[in-house]
Amino acid sequence: MKLALIRSTCGSLRVHPGHPGSRLSGLSRRCVPAGFANSRLILRTASATSRSGGTSPKMTLHFGQKEGMFECDGSVSEVVQSTKEAMMALQRRNPAIQPLLVILQAGEDDSVLEMNKKMAGKIGVNVTQVCLAKRCSEDEIVEELLKLNDDPKVHGVYLHLPPASLTSRVLNTLKPEKDIDGMSDLNLGRLVRGDLSKGFVPPAASAVLDLLEKHDAPLEGKTVLLVGGEEPFQLSLQCLIERSGMMVVKSCWNSQSLQRQVMQADAVVLLGANMDVPPMWVRPGAAVIRCEPAVETDDGMSSKSGMGYLTAAYRTQNVVRSCGRWLQDQQYQPWSLRSLKLQPLTPVPSDIEISRAQTPKAVDQLAEEIGLLPDELEAYGRSKAKVRLSLLDRLHSQPDGKYVLVAGITPTPLGEGKSTVTIGLVQALSAHLKLNSFACLRQPSQGPTFGVKGGAAGGGYAQVIPMEEFNLHLTGDIHAITAANNLVAAAIDARMLHEATQSDKALFNRLVPSVNGVRRFSPIQISRLHRLGINKTDPASLTPQEVSSFVRLDLDPSKITWQRVVDTNDRFLRKITIGQASTEKGQIRETGFDIAVASEIMAILALADSLEDMKNRLARMVVGTSRSGQPITAEDLGVSGALAVLMKDAIKPTLMQTLEGTPVFVHAGPFANIAHGNSSVLADKLALKLVGRDGFVVTEAGFGADIGMEKFFNIKCRASGLRPSVVVLVATVRALKMHGGGPNVSAGAPLPAEYIDENLSLVAGGCRSNLKKQIQIAHLFGVPVVVAVNVFKTDTQAEIKLVCDIAKECGASDAVPCHHWAQGGRGSVELAQAVNQAASRPSNFQFLYDIEMPIVEKIRTIAQKVYGADDIELSPEAKAKINYYNQQGYGSLPICMAKTHLSLSHMPDKKGAPTGFVLPIRDIRASIGASFIYPLVGTMSTMPGLPTRPCFYDIDLDPVTEEITGLF
Amino acid sequence: MKLALIRSTCGSLRVHPGHPGSRLSGLSRRCVPAGFANSRLILRTASATSRSGGTSPKMTLHFGQKEGMFECDGSVSEVVQSTKEAMMALQRRNPAIQPLLVILQAGEDDSVLEMNKKMAGKIGVNVTQVCLAKRCSEDEIVEELLKLNDDPKVHGVYLHLPPASLTSRVLNTLKPEKDIDGMSDLNLGRLVRGDLSKGFVPPAASAVLDLLEKHDAPLEGKTVLLVGGEEPFQLSLQCLIERSGMMVVKSCWNSQSLQRQVMQADAVVLLGANMDVPPMWVRPGAAVIRCEPAVETDDGMSSKSGMGYLTAAYRTQNVVRSCGRWLQDQQYQPWSLRSLKLQPLTPVPSDIEISRAQTPKAVDQLAEEIGLLPDELEAYGRSKAKVRLSLLDRLHSQPDGKYVLVAGITPTPLGEGKSTVTIGLVQALSAHLKLNSFACLRQPSQGPTFGVKGGAAGGGYAQVIPMEEFNLHLTGDIHAITAANNLVAAAIDARMLHEATQSDKALFNRLVPSVNGVRRFSPIQISRLHRLGINKTDPASLTPQEVSSFVRLDLDPSKITWQRVVDTNDRFLRKITIGQASTEKGQIRETGFDIAVASEIMAILALADSLEDMKNRLARMVVGTSRSGQPITAEDLGVSGALAVLMKDAIKPTLMQTLEGTPVFVHAGPFANIAHGNSSVLADKLALKLVGRDGFVVTEAGFGADIGMEKFFNIKCRASGLRPSVVVLVATVRALKMHGGGPNVSAGAPLPAEYIDENLSLVAGGCRSNLKKQIQIAHLFGVPVVVAVNVFKTDTQAEIKLVCDIAKECGASDAVPCHHWAQGGRGSVELAQAVNQAASRPSNFQFLYDIEMPIVEKIRTIAQKVYGADDIELSPEAKAKINYYNQQGYGSLPICMAKTHLSLSHMPDKKGAPTGFVLPIRDIRASIGASFIYPLVGTMSTMPGLPTRPCFYDIDLDPVTEEITGLF
Repeated sequence: MKLALIRSTCGSLRVHPGHPGSRLSGLSRRCVPAGFANSRLILRTASATSRSGGTSPKMTLHFGQKEGMFECDGSVSEVVQSTKEAMMALQRRNPAIQPLLVILQAGEDDSVLEMNKKMAGKIGVNVTQVCLAKRCSEDEIVEELLKLNDDPKVHGVYLHLPPASLTSRVLNTLKPEKDIDGMSDLNLGRLVRGDLSKGFVPPAASAVLDLLEKHDAPLEGKTVLLVGGEEPFQLSLQCLIERSGMMVVKSCWNSQSLQRQVMQADAVVLLGANMDVPPMWVRPGAAVIRCEPAVETDDGMSSKSGMGYLTAAYRTQNVVRSCGRWLQDQQYQPWSLRSLKLQPLTPVPSDIEISRAQTPKAVDQLAEEIGLLPDELEAYGRSKAKVRLSLLDRLHSQPDGKYVLVAGITPTPLGEGKSTVTIGLVQALSAHLKLNSFACLRQPSQGPTFGVKGGAAGGGYAQVIPMEEFNLHLTGDIHAITAANNLVAAAIDARMLHEATQSDKALFNRLVPSVNGVRRFSPIQISRLHRLGINKTDPASLTPQEVSSFVRLDLDPSKITWQRVVDTNDRFLRKITIGQASTEKGQIRETGFDIAVASEIMAILALADSLEDMKNRLARMVVGTSRSGQPITAEDLGVSGALAVLMKDAIKPTLMQTLEGTPVFVHAGPFANIAHGNSSVLADKLALKLVGRDGFVVTEAGFGADIGMEKFFNIKCRASGLRPSVVVLVATVRALKMHGGGPNVSAGAPLPAEYIDENLSLVAGGCRSNLKKQIQIAHLFGVPVVVAVNVFKTDTQAEIKLVCDIAKECGASDAVPCHHWAQGGRGSVELAQAVNQAASRPSNFQFLYDIEMPIVEKIRTIAQKVYGADDIELSPEAKAKINYYNQQGYGSLPICMAKTHLSLSHMPDKKGAPTGFVLPIRDIRASIGASFIYPLVGTMSTMPGLPTRPCFYDIDLDPVTEEITGLF
Repeated sequence: MKLALIRSTCGSLRVHPGHPGSRLSGLSRRCVPAGFANSRLILRTASATSRSGGTSPKMTLHFGQKEGMFECDGSVSEVVQSTKEAMMALQRRNPAIQPLLVILQAGEDDSVLEMNKKMAGKIGVNVTQVCLAKRCSEDEIVEELLKLNDDPKVHGVYLHLPPASLTSRVLNTLKPEKDIDGMSDLNLGRLVRGDLSKGFVPPAASAVLDLLEKHDAPLEGKTVLLVGGEEPFQLSLQCLIERSGMMVVKSCWNSQSLQRQVMQADAVVLLGANMDVPPMWVRPGAAVIRCEPAVETDDGMSSKSGMGYLTAAYRTQNVVRSCGRWLQDQQYQPWSLRSLKLQPLTPVPSDIEISRAQTPKAVDQLAEEIGLLPDELEAYGRSKAKVRLSLLDRLHSQPDGKYVLVAGITPTPLGEGKSTVTIGLVQALSAHLKLNSFACLRQPSQGPTFGVKGGAAGGGYAQVIPMEEFNLHLTGDIHAITAANNLVAAAIDARMLHEATQSDKALFNRLVPSVNGVRRFSPIQISRLHRLGINKTDPASLTPQEVSSFVRLDLDPSKITWQRVVDTNDRFLRKITIGQASTEKGQIRETGFDIAVASEIMAILALADSLEDMKNRLARMVVGTSRSGQPITAEDLGVSGALAVLMKDAIKPTLMQTLEGTPVFVHAGPFANIAHGNSSVLADKLALKLVGRDGFVVTEAGFGADIGMEKFFNIKCRASGLRPSVVVLVATVRALKMHGGGPNVSAGAPLPAEYIDENLSLVAGGCRSNLKKQIQIAHLFGVPVVVAVNVFKTDTQAEIKLVCDIAKECGASDAVPCHHWAQGGRGSVELAQAVNQAASRPSNFQFLYDIEMPIVEKIRTIAQKVYGADDIELSPEAKAKINYYNQQGYGSLPICMAKTHLSLSHMPDKKGAPTGFVLPIRDIRASIGASFIYPLVGTMSTMPGLPTRPCFYDIDLDPVTEEITGLF
């Protein structure tokens, strides 16, 4: 039974009462572990009557005149002084740090404890005492130790327990890094091997060694006799003495040859209780150190002896050392990342084969390599883990790394490979240039994985592994979004039904029920009252009018904007009629399902910068409009707390790794059509701290630079406050040929010869139109551009060189070919070097528009400067919406254009860099929780369909090996 | 670079060629770790000219006549013999076991390796050699070691590497349990402390000790001189020699006093290379042991010396010992479970407060305590983990524990508390009676958590913790079911659309596309062809008629039985119209959503007994009927492989813990209305192996015993082959009063006095009707019953005693009150003892009906024997369905009644034990994948709704502490 916890801070005691009924009385007053605990010292002169004649002329009589206290005190002062200095050095590095020693004791304080507390106080180390009953069980001790192990504020634990309690299980339960008495098997082994960079020297051994080394006649090469003692301690001590260049002879207390051995020794260390040797045995000048298990004597002898204080000083020193190591572990340093070897095959096998052929590192090992603490990690199986946001607090003062965005030219059916460039680049940076680097990727929707698109974990030798984990449930974030999104939907329709079928009074009685005779508003209801301008907290005090406005959201069924979602390509749910069962009493209405990643909650997950921010954004999501034109929010529905609960794990980014064992965050994947299409702010922030000043975080923007990059800068960077260092613009020779006027391609048909044979004029056409324009767009934001030419095997040297030359002509800082798909990181080293160089140049980032500009002006700025339009044209609906949003105070949100990604214009078949067009704005919508307004340019599908032969025909699982086939 | 892997099995070598380009030539021939490696021995007589006179009369001249080889060979034989015996003992316990030594070497074989391989072969230990290049890097070595660590077939690793490669990182990367040379810090520490139950004695040290102990003049109390040697090895050896009762003196090779020390020693051990002492220094009868780092000499000296073989023999012995420990770890044994202490408060706080006040053990620690191996566990955060099914193979020969079912009387609005009884019972069994026990629970649907029901993790001091993890996403199984279910639905509608809008030829071209000019059927399409009776594999060979029947499922839209699901209480989705977008070309139809746990996939998850079984069941799920009346399956849709992939993790049960730290599996939760309402077969099977022969697995059946228990026996036990030992029947005084004729209660209104004041006649009425009937139902199956009276604070002693008395009168083996809600496991100790006693009696389990009986007879048997009906009455629809199912070959499936749980009859308000009624069968459906037929008695809702004020109003998350409030 645990009796009480007494916390002493620098000597001042605060007593927390124990559990009722427990008492501190009757506790042991003599309970010090044998061999390791405090000890007392007697140093005495060998008397002149010493019968042995082997006096060394170098040895002088020194000790003993005054019981050796002086020497010992001197040592104590030195240790105290050096430990204080070490502590001040720590506190200069981290002013908030405070080393903490926990004393786990059985019974009340005794003088040894007092000495240790006094010493800790003198040096400035905090002390917490955990008092167990004198006869506590092993289980109780273990339970306390497990708690202390888990507490990052505890730097050292002193086990002040009866010897019988210091079992192997107890000693080895305490984490070695907190085992300041060096008693665990691991620390013993480290000491024996001589590796003191991690373990601890037992404080009593340090004290003995200190005195031996201070002996004014050097003892090097001399003989030290150890008498008695328990084996592990005796052996540690022997080891240390021998390592200091002395020779050790050991003897038992009851050995017949003790006298002879004492007479031959240059120093004698007595390790047992109640030992003493007759002065006449001791050689003149020889030292005698008595280091017995501390036992409190009635005269308080041991408490006053110098050896006890010296041991306590070394113990405290170990606490400070432990604290220093802990701090060191949390400092930025170049990672010692063990990269996984690649042996690329030719021809390149399928993605799933490549993924399966590589064994990923255990995710906890990867986490350790990149400086995460064990309690910042939540493993999900062997190869995925969520990372806690507390990391941001811990690394708060750490400078951020460099921030690289991978964007692309306007997409064509021929593909560009932004994801493989992103992954290849971090493989090159981390595994080849040995620069800390992180890729931050979007989580793909599961729907398209089973439809036509296949996986999204990169490809070839630039992949995230295991690719099936990446492409399937991952850590359940999208499932959490689905659950949260659909809870809102269910709440909307249920509320409309209940409002339609109940009186104000009945609604009020149910919404604010009497529980044990008391009626109370819940906090979420108080918020709604405030929004309604009703500042009352007593339900009985509301007027009938107030009751009515409180209980009736009065949602207009035709103006509900909230849709349900599934993470399946289910085209039949695009437009549906719900509520047709008789139980819903005729409240039918038309609505639809979107793919889960199109949920506003996904956009919120991607933009939130803390749990609190996410919760607030969820609460203010607008789900529709009341009949009187008021926006109705998730909080009005009473559901916002539940949404935060459903999303509490989803907010933590998921750690995975590339094929070469370098770290990747996968987090959030908002639809690039109607949202901003970028991975999460939080993953980027965590990664920037983890890579540190000289490191790189590489993230990817969806679609072409005109859409993904523009939104990355204007929406994501605005929300996060982060500033990009470099843009990597991905292009392929084939896609550039299409932008240069190459023919259309159609799925299934053979590729036209233009895309297989060298054709420099098409390449040049594409470079001078689309590539040039996209480089210019990046420069609008003041960020340097490196063009990455993702090389295909049909590309010729001349074509590649031409792209690089024109790119540099157009202002790119550099332009290089890359071969990551076939070669992994090694194939992208040139790109990595170019990015590293570009990142070292000053960047001059600026937003494209001021957030306070009128909505129309913001849209026009994007259309003209980014897309190259002459102007914009607003439909009447769009104009009405702009008025409404301005009226509701949503006017100063950033703009998230919903435009085709297949052209810089709104016309998908206009490749290159179209000009002379007017951009039509069909309608405008708003994601108030995510905080952006999205103008619709044309129709955007928010629910993909399945083709006649979906991918799932080829996907299978071998039930014996559990291997998956057919994912790509 | 890794060069080649050579595997030697008992001496026979198979050579796997290395990576192309690598060669084995040019490797080191001298690369043995110093100090630890094989050694050679010279034992010689001290010559008679020894100048020292201190001959002990007890010491006789013995060694040296023939270079000591004889003695050494004798030792070798003994070690070989005893190790062979140890191995045979292991193989008697587990015939399949084969100890495996891995030699990690840099370069080619040398004579030391040959010796070790020869010795392993002689004893029968398999050897695998992993050959790295001579100058391999530390990273390469570490990479190999990590693989060896993870390979459960490897029992020991011999690091045959150059001394410079044996860095602290290398030595400490190898798992201590495979460190058969005892070189890791942890094993060194264990040796120094004297704990040899876990570590290993370095083989060379064992060899020296063996020879010292075999010296025919006992060396106890005598002096052994150690000369030279590297520190950790020298210290280990010293430690062992001293522990054997000898005294140790150490010397350096270049010490001036070496001669004197040798002359004084009773035995001399030379630990360095090229050491030898002049014979004249050695005392007569003293032994000299030369134990130098093995260096291959040109004459092959060391390879022939006995010491090399003796060391190799001890190394092999360590491998066998390691293998034995590994086996031992996997054997059944009473758990050393560290139970968490409870200090119940009065009044009992809310469930979430109780849950939050307890700190759960880390799940990997819990797993270790119950005998799971680390690689059988997939953690999901800190307090949940999935357990791999490979456990079933490992514990295949382990006897099962006892199998206890918790069932209830017919439910009333007053509640019975089956979940709390289940959890309280395992808390009592594990934490108080110290019997291994597991609770196997259903995963609750998330929908009702936010509706009216609240959480389902038990309550009071009998809970699964953390309750919020239990009640929310858990490990994503229900999300996986949702994804799989809805993929089937999307596939159905997309297929109907494509069939409606394409010709046979177009469909065929898309379904069997030409890839690189080749057309091939996928395996899933071959299965469909087989079912159609088309035994062709060449797509070109199909006749137009065959093409048509292959490409057209020809689903009848009005006969699609597959519904979509969400895990949300969304009543507006009960009946909907889909396909109303113009893109779906008018293919609209009516359908609906069920709650996710009502999906047939959930029932399959609960009943599958392997991954393969689950995959097969998923493939044969019937989703509807073709226009010609043929059942159409998931495999026909081509989606069954993808379903298995989506469900591959869901099939692994989730490990959690009770408030007292005892283990719980949470797995599957099929709707008790239209499915069988029991947790998974696999969780029960895993748990039964883990608890072992004397342990208990307690699981719970949904609803009253008439439904949940009947289905448990007739469906679940039939599928699993498991046989129950005891039924615990839960009753409360209040609920019995209602069955005895007490008044109805209504939510919100005060409870009638009958339920608060003592009323023995109502109690007796309930006992003699419902309780008695439910006991009789259990006895129909031949299983003993223990009645658990779940005590409420308003129950009187007389009432409780009356229930117990009548229960025993009615044939219950025992009947006891239990107080787990207020007291935790301590409050259920009496129940645990009663269950333990009942389980020791022979049980005589039998099914209620033969599976081959006609469907109608099976239904009638249940209605009459279980429900007490006079007969059944089938609607015309039901009769037609029975004919159809018989015709399709589904006649011999078990029956899963869909009947109200609120009465033994079909009339919810008939409490007690109604008689004289005829059970109407409205319709009959089938879950072909799950393998049961479910007759509908009345209408069953498969989608709950939200009330006016759902639970979510109170649910909130503190964004700073991350604490959840309002869950209950």
